[in-house]
Amino acid sequence: MASTSPSALSPPEVPMELHACNRKKLLDSLRKHLSDSSRPLHGFVLLQGGEEKTRYCTDHCELFRQESYFAYLFGVREPSFYGAIDIATGNSILFAPRLPADYAVWLGEIMPPSYFQERYMVSMVYYTDEITQVLVDQYKGSGKPLLFLLHGLNTDSNNFSKPAEFEGIENFETDLRTLHPILTECRVVKSDLELALIQFANDISSEAHVEVMRNTKANMKEYQLESMFLHHTYMYGGCRHCSYTCICATGENSAVLHYGHAAAPNDRTLEDGDMALLDMGAEYSFYGSDITCTFPVNGKFTSDQSLIYNAVLDAHDAVINTMKPGISWVDMHKLAEKVILESLVKGNILVGHVEDMMGERLGAIFMPHGLGHLLGIDTHDPGGYPKGVERPKEPGLKSLRTARHLQEGMVITVEPGCYFIDALLVPAMKNANTSKFFNREILDRFKNVGGVRIESDVLVTANGSKNMTKVPRKTWEIEAVMAGGPWPLGKASNHSENGGEAKV
Amino acid sequence: MASTSPSALSPPEVPMELHACNRKKLLDSLRKHLSDSSRPLHGFVLLQGGEEKTRYCTDHCELFRQESYFAYLFGVREPSFYGAIDIATGNSILFAPRLPADYAVWLGEIMPPSYFQERYMVSMVYYTDEITQVLVDQYKGSGKPLLFLLHGLNTDSNNFSKPAEFEGIENFETDLRTLHPILTECRVVKSDLELALIQFANDISSEAHVEVMRNTKANMKEYQLESMFLHHTYMYGGCRHCSYTCICATGENSAVLHYGHAAAPNDRTLEDGDMALLDMGAEYSFYGSDITCTFPVNGKFTSDQSLIYNAVLDAHDAVINTMKPGISWVDMHKLAEKVILESLVKGNILVGHVEDMMGERLGAIFMPHGLGHLLGIDTHDPGGYPKGVERPKEPGLKSLRTARHLQEGMVITVEPGCYFIDALLVPAMKNANTSKFFNREILDRFKNVGGVRIESDVLVTANGSKNMTKVPRKTWEIEAVMAGGPWPLGKASNHSENGGEAKV
Repeated sequence: MASTSPSALSPPEVPMELHACNRKKLLDSLRKHLSDSSRPLHGFVLLQGGEEKTRYCTDHCELFRQESYFAYLFGVREPSFYGAIDIATGNSILFAPRLPADYAVWLGEIMPPSYFQERYMVSMVYYTDEITQVLVDQYKGSGKPLLFLLHGLNTDSNNFSKPAEFEGIENFETDLRTLHPILTECRVVKSDLELALIQFANDISSEAHVEVMRNTKANMKEYQLESMFLHHTYMYGGCRHCSYTCICATGENSAVLHYGHAAAPNDRTLEDGDMALLDMGAEYSFYGSDITCTFPVNGKFTSDQSLIYNAVLDAHDAVINTMKPGISWVDMHKLAEKVILESLVKGNILVGHVEDMMGERLGAIFMPHGLGHLLGIDTHDPGGYPKGVERPKEPGLKSLRTARHLQEGMVITVEPGCYFIDALLVPAMKNANTSKFFNREILDRFKNVGGVRIESDVLVTANGSKNMTKVPRKTWEIEAVMAGGPWPLGKASNHSENGGEAKV
Repeated sequence: MASTSPSALSPPEVPMELHACNRKKLLDSLRKHLSDSSRPLHGFVLLQGGEEKTRYCTDHCELFRQESYFAYLFGVREPSFYGAIDIATGNSILFAPRLPADYAVWLGEIMPPSYFQERYMVSMVYYTDEITQVLVDQYKGSGKPLLFLLHGLNTDSNNFSKPAEFEGIENFETDLRTLHPILTECRVVKSDLELALIQFANDISSEAHVEVMRNTKANMKEYQLESMFLHHTYMYGGCRHCSYTCICATGENSAVLHYGHAAAPNDRTLEDGDMALLDMGAEYSFYGSDITCTFPVNGKFTSDQSLIYNAVLDAHDAVINTMKPGISWVDMHKLAEKVILESLVKGNILVGHVEDMMGERLGAIFMPHGLGHLLGIDTHDPGGYPKGVERPKEPGLKSLRTARHLQEGMVITVEPGCYFIDALLVPAMKNANTSKFFNREILDRFKNVGGVRIESDVLVTANGSKNMTKVPRKTWEIEAVMAGGPWPLGKASNHSENGGEAKV
């Protein structure tokens, strides 16, 4: 890479073994489950891939992104596929759409099944109009062949996944209950091949965050920061998709947790003295990143800004340093809250005992969202609430997207925040149980800080954790980089590592 | 604007009078239609705006873009609205969703109805749960109030628009037949306010095309050209959406008309000697652009590349110079074909009489798509085939998205192309009626040219036409700009104007 390039990175090859390993993992897990329940080891896992969609009544085609469970098992980038795994033999079968002849004129060369077989490393490829015949032919059991279809609740959206549908499905027995929890659980713990992609998404997104930080100036528009991020990750990282719509919140907007959507489209003008809260992450070959940096637009933290920023950074670091297999995520959320409340007491914004505040759930006034969520092919990766894990009911904790205990191989975001949100503060200051904690005069001074969030993507290792996100975090690092200093800082990298794990 | 900025442009203010004028135009047109059919002048036009969508079963929120008919009448950027126009009084009424209290924490300040009333210049704003009551109260006629709902065929997608649905609709009479053709016809002829936005989308997209042209080099990836375009139009033009997915086709890909989608994702590496066919257009405040530039990656046309390029450019210019109100678009398509075939004969690729070739529809082998389409809030703006205008059946002509006669105020793309597509050439060279026209040896030499398309957005004026697209078109202009020369070229602008119209 030429030294004049604004990037030290280039997009890595994506090995299709990744998805073959994902299929193997599912197969092992499903076979074990069937054996344990004394059920026969035959039938097929059958998933329907995503379809291209047009906008409303028009022929405007939205850029297609594969459905995530299908992407996990097959890695197919094209729409309108089906995929099957034969539980008896372990064979994988893709079904490709039979394209009309004029596809070649309008959309590209029509590839034969052998092309997809090689590209996606599957045992066989047929056309989607052959599903019934192929699966009946391949079936080794007696009676109607059994299909394991994907049907289950996404606990973030409260939507259900859509089981495969095709002509001829009445020739099969279907099981809607077995597959979803097992496949979801496979996705919770990442393989090394998956981690390599999440790491690249983190690397290019971290670099892009630094690039944006360096180029942010008063009088710019928030969307210009978004544009710089998108450009850097696509131009140098080949990332056509982001994991989510960029949140580029400055000034008071930084207290709006999911700013940046169509009704709040990153269109404010940056002012000298503002903080910028930028929550942006690129996706590479289906695997995502989710990173938030908060910094002063003019490159210099005020003491009030530092106070809130360091409260959040201390919480972020305390959590990462405590994380290891077996640790409860709910406890980590409470740890973050405690560290933040302690800092607010030190800063005279709050008065009283932190234990009392914790008892009143005061932390949720300043951090109404959960501490973090599983990350993978989806930004909010599924599996946060498997059977037996209950969602907490208390303010703040109920927003947690998982209440699990950590396991080696999980990737989870650590994203504490501290916000001054009138919709929460005003009632809390009136509430008889919590009003006593607030030092109103000092608090008022902090309202123009808006909000601070610091978010890294963290891998749970055998003995601890590893931060996959590599951005300036300490106030002096941010100020140095914004003043034109290098990043990373020579050998002295800032990213947290504990447990002495080798890098992925 | 500082002279160091890579852009001479900045995003203009968008006057909401634009949408008020659109409503007025519909009201006048609908009232006239009702009077002419001796129907009473009462009832309401009622449209349902678009809804935000999540991806598959997840909570991943796709960036919302308003439904186009709703955008035309109301200019509302937020999801989940309804809008009504009272035919008796001319009053316009927006219905906003009633947002839950925690929207303020997650998504932003909850705006009161008065905010939307002022922002969108409508007569009244209520909540969507008040639709029935408000419309019944406002109704001046007898019996059940009449609703004119949007239901009709989009002739590009063959999909039907979705009439508004809401709780309580059974309290109304509904008319599904009257509104769609009248509202669609309103959209066909653009107002000056609409033209100003289409012009800005053209200006920023033209500038971005030049920027991409200047930075294109061998060994880059096609998607890097896309990234540069997207960045320029968003960073300097505030264009968050493109009119369509960028087509960045180089080498043989330039013969794939709609390259760039998820299954052909602009991922080829550019080679010295390639042509690049870049079809990219930004959208500004709902109004779009649609521009194609074709140029040699290394900045120098070969004589073979020039021959094909100039064949297409001559067709492009001939059409623009002939366009004026009353001209048949089918005739313009044939004119473009004729000019291209004449050049192919001159270049010895084809042999014989062009009239004979036209009789055999040979033009459709080299240009299988239509010459151009209406452009506005949709890239393929509706209204191409109103009642009484029949779609041609012949090859090439049947792909036309309109067969209308031109009218002042239409904006239509002029996008002739010449492609070497095996899926079309091989059968044509075998066909007894057309095989005689081909000079196979010479033709083979041209196959690596791939395809050339030149596309401008052209306004039909009172006496002629005006090209709204401002990019280098002549081969020497392209070579000069790619070699670092200025654009535009001093006073001598290249954009076609005829009919002596003032600029919009």
